Amino acid sequence: MREFVIPHRNNFGANCIAGIASIALEHHLKKALIITDRNLQEIGVSGKIEQILYDAGLQFATYASVRPNPTKSNVYEALALYKKEHSDFIIGLGGGSANDCAKAVGILAANGGQLEDYVGLNKSRKVAPLMMLVNTTAGTASEISRAYLISDEVKQEKLIFKDLHALPYCTFNDPELMIGLPAKITAATGMDALTHALESYVCTGKYALTQKLAMAAIELVFDNLRDVIAHPSDLKLRENMIYAQSLAGMAFCNSGVGLVHAMAHQLGAVYNLPHGLCNAVLLPYVMRYNRQVCEVEYAQLARRLFAEKCKDKSTSECADLMIQEVTRLSNDVGTAVRLGDLGIKESDYQLLAEKSLADGNIHKNPIMPSLDDVIAIFKSAY
Amino acid sequence: MREFVIPHRNNFGANCIAGIASIALEHHLKKALIITDRNLQEIGVSGKIEQILYDAGLQFATYASVRPNPTKSNVYEALALYKKEHSDFIIGLGGGSANDCAKAVGILAANGGQLEDYVGLNKSRKVAPLMMLVNTTAGTASEISRAYLISDEVKQEKLIFKDLHALPYCTFNDPELMIGLPAKITAATGMDALTHALESYVCTGKYALTQKLAMAAIELVFDNLRDVIAHPSDLKLRENMIYAQSLAGMAFCNSGVGLVHAMAHQLGAVYNLPHGLCNAVLLPYVMRYNRQVCEVEYAQLARRLFAEKCKDKSTSECADLMIQEVTRLSNDVGTAVRLGDLGIKESDYQLLAEKSLADGNIHKNPIMPSLDDVIAIFKSAY
Repeated sequence: MREFVIPHRNNFGANCIAGIASIALEHHLKKALIITDRNLQEIGVSGKIEQILYDAGLQFATYASVRPNPTKSNVYEALALYKKEHSDFIIGLGGGSANDCAKAVGILAANGGQLEDYVGLNKSRKVAPLMMLVNTTAGTASEISRAYLISDEVKQEKLIFKDLHALPYCTFNDPELMIGLPAKITAATGMDALTHALESYVCTGKYALTQKLAMAAIELVFDNLRDVIAHPSDLKLRENMIYAQSLAGMAFCNSGVGLVHAMAHQLGAVYNLPHGLCNAVLLPYVMRYNRQVCEVEYAQLARRLFAEKCKDKSTSECADLMIQEVTRLSNDVGTAVRLGDLGIKESDYQLLAEKSLADGNIHKNPIMPSLDDVIAIFKSAY
Repeated sequence: MREFVIPHRNNFGANCIAGIASIALEHHLKKALIITDRNLQEIGVSGKIEQILYDAGLQFATYASVRPNPTKSNVYEALALYKKEHSDFIIGLGGGSANDCAKAVGILAANGGQLEDYVGLNKSRKVAPLMMLVNTTAGTASEISRAYLISDEVKQEKLIFKDLHALPYCTFNDPELMIGLPAKITAATGMDALTHALESYVCTGKYALTQKLAMAAIELVFDNLRDVIAHPSDLKLRENMIYAQSLAGMAFCNSGVGLVHAMAHQLGAVYNLPHGLCNAVLLPYVMRYNRQVCEVEYAQLARRLFAEKCKDKSTSECADLMIQEVTRLSNDVGTAVRLGDLGIKESDYQLLAEKSLADGNIHKNPIMPSLDDVIAIFKSAY
């Protein structure tokens, strides 16, 4: 039995955020809490949303202090504002961080208690207030996921939640909001989407539906990511990357992911590094490790994406080619950095590997690694 | 701006219908109205659902008189039962007919008035009572669509509705319910799914996301439909056809369809013929007509599905091949019957063509046909 879960209404296209007001009015809502980060406030993106609400006669308050890898403090601060302002709906605005924070606020607003009460699967009793999540990167797919991660700053751990009551009612993917994204973020978030799709395609939770979605996402990333970095203002390319990340999200939110995520979460929690970049850096190394059980799947992907190059090649050679092409893409878009260059200390590998094996995503990896395996993968990426 | 709409929760797999009870309890619901047809009642499928509800302490009433191409009378009878029994949720059980009827009952139960008040797009004010739609064929995708069609028996017309408030909360696709489907229905509903995907792939409402979904659906139909007819008890093949129809549904419910549907609806309304079969019969002839503007898209599909056969072929030759392969599949599964053999009179073609041009789906066809064009297509399929 499999449950394929996804928000009801997913809006795409230039200026689709204008639809926020009509949906709020349709639901007789009065006052939004906008949850976003300082940067999106400074470049005026949250101001755009505020204007849309204002023009429709809707009220709002804005919490703009979400950090990358959102913290428990972020959640409690935003929750206090939600209550103080008597808001009745939530607008998340950002990549994964703001939207993850919005989901946590929604669950606490509806259910009370502490974040720790809801760690795990479907732990809340009541559905969050109506949530609209606006996606400003083409990567995390946080906006279509019922999962969210909050960093415990003190314990240097990620609290991981997966809760149907945290699924937003609607999502907005406006390519105009992505025109100004720095190339580094476009690259890291695009590689994040690729990681979602590649992990979904081989994970233990895969099935025909999620594999078709994942494959479509992988094709779109290979067809568009290099180009969108070369032509950042091209709305068509931005839109194609949005569809890539949405398809990847539809896949991995319903199949699970695997070892890349289990390891990347620890780098995020301990070093506060961007999630997409951590995924991108680790992806080729984990593929090399998983290759022992995923040769057929990697070869399938290679034959689909690189039919010409695969002609007369064996399954094993095609699998190798797929890993090489992922590595080449990561090189081309600038995410193939070394862990050492990101400031990660070799002396932490033991601890990072232990935490990776305790991460909930590890069980979806197609093969269960040992502690030594994980340490070896960290070392190979050093 | 595009809105991609889909039910929140979509359940797949053998015995997934067991989940009906837990979702009803989660939502504190008390009494279902099951809407289905005589055949599903006689072979015990509605009894299975009743047992699941009974075992969970839930009440139910059953309306089992839905006709193929459900009528206005069906809707009003079921609505009267819903009110009389004080039901608080609706379970549709069937292919398109029962599920379309369920949606109409839901809209009238929440909004009052007459069916005619809601013809068109988003005409209702209130969301239907919680609806769970159980799909018993792999074809119509009615269970994931907000659209529904009701036949006006007197005027011999189809009333067409598309309403966000008619979107079910959750869907169930249980391959065990499909094991006993006669080959004729498996074939017609499978070709229905193919028609959805093929019309979606080329229609004016297409975009990258819907095209990826449509292509995946087309692949799954070609990979599984012949086999499932040869091995009707194979759960894996049944499941693959379910994913095919779901992907096709995700595509066409958000892009629209085209001329095949515009013409098939009239055959359904005037001759009460099964929708899937009408689509299957007309599909190759409409493809031949649309080919003048869809050569590139048909060739793309052929190259994806029949790479070997397309080697060294021109775009035009690949497009021809795609139409030939659709015709061959329809022949192989037994849906390539002649309109004349279905009892359709040549003298009705003028009227059928006029009605086709008035059908709401015609505007999504990649080229607007003339009355003579439509008559000529009917004649070619005679």
